[in-house]
Amino acid sequence: MNTKELVLQRKNKKISDHAVRRLPRYLKKLDELYVDGVERLSSNQLGRMLSITPSQIRQDLSNFGEFGQQGYGYNVRDLRRVIAAILGMDRNFTAILVGAGNIGHALIDHFDFNSVGVRLISAFDANPDIVGKSLGDIAIYSIENLKEMVSVHQPDIAILSVPMAYANPVAEILVEAGIKGIWNFTNVELDFPNATTVVENINFSDSLLVLSYYLSNI
Amino acid sequence: MNTKELVLQRKNKKISDHAVRRLPRYLKKLDELYVDGVERLSSNQLGRMLSITPSQIRQDLSNFGEFGQQGYGYNVRDLRRVIAAILGMDRNFTAILVGAGNIGHALIDHFDFNSVGVRLISAFDANPDIVGKSLGDIAIYSIENLKEMVSVHQPDIAILSVPMAYANPVAEILVEAGIKGIWNFTNVELDFPNATTVVENINFSDSLLVLSYYLSNI
Repeated sequence: MNTKELVLQRKNKKISDHAVRRLPRYLKKLDELYVDGVERLSSNQLGRMLSITPSQIRQDLSNFGEFGQQGYGYNVRDLRRVIAAILGMDRNFTAILVGAGNIGHALIDHFDFNSVGVRLISAFDANPDIVGKSLGDIAIYSIENLKEMVSVHQPDIAILSVPMAYANPVAEILVEAGIKGIWNFTNVELDFPNATTVVENINFSDSLLVLSYYLSNI
Repeated sequence: MNTKELVLQRKNKKISDHAVRRLPRYLKKLDELYVDGVERLSSNQLGRMLSITPSQIRQDLSNFGEFGQQGYGYNVRDLRRVIAAILGMDRNFTAILVGAGNIGHALIDHFDFNSVGVRLISAFDANPDIVGKSLGDIAIYSIENLKEMVSVHQPDIAILSVPMAYANPVAEILVEAGIKGIWNFTNVELDFPNATTVVENINFSDSLLVLSYYLSNI
């Protein structure tokens, strides 16, 4: 079965969000193994490396077709290619960054967008001191041009890294301009009653509270 | 039942990680409602606000005792106090930040540690240009003093925001010095064979891939 068949096949199934969130971890480990020259491995081996039960791994991957062979395991190269395709890494998604403060700046300087198949094309900010300048290859435009630029160029993803008070107003502009996905760094739960926009949150507070929970329960 | 009884009671149960990760979302919404003067609400109402099924909410909260009353719902003030305690917000956890580059700098400048009950006490970096200086109230010490400082002052949490290549070596130092929790921003899956240190990852790549998955499957 080739990648396209697998990708088509999965469209009929509803995959749990938890399973989706395990896929990047599988991919990263498979990438490492591939670089190390490993050709195949069992769900037992992969499970041990990731502290995930082998049956969980088999169940997650069975959502996307028949991979492993009894007694042979998974072919590392094929499996990583398929998971990369499932995750949309071959879709050439484009992104803009909205809010080039510290977090936005850090993402532009240090985050390897290419490694996940996304191309960062431009940034927007309200600060006149940085509008018109560039960070690396990324030009910073005025936030006043945001709606028009999104409407015209139709990037797939907006990285939202504006101050909290601007999170919902700016998100509304993005949704009205037709953005498909928002990667939300604002710590604000965005609120779009009728939009089909996909929102993925990086929520620092929630994450630190989870750590605090586990520290309280050692 | 008071907070302490509830907190003791839950110790006998194994709560799923997924349930733990929903608690901060409940807390944030309850905080908003409390500020807005709402005194009680049903699991149906809370569920609608958070796009979580009411039965999921009832099940999550039942892990920690008997809250809601049939026909009355939850008392907002009591429930938020209990969830805050469950999340360890009253434990006065202390944190140090290791790696004061862009991400570290952004956390010091903008992240409200107090809002989750954590106190940031100091930062460490290898860059001689910033060692000995301060960011706001936070003094930046040389990374060479890290092990001694952790051993002596025993902070609960280390925020790891060093470059990827240093992630595991610095984490090892922290574990050897007795750190209890690591909040890991390095995008590296840390590897401690025998440590009891709790690690909570903020993984930007994985999160963007999840967004990419959903955009590929709209």
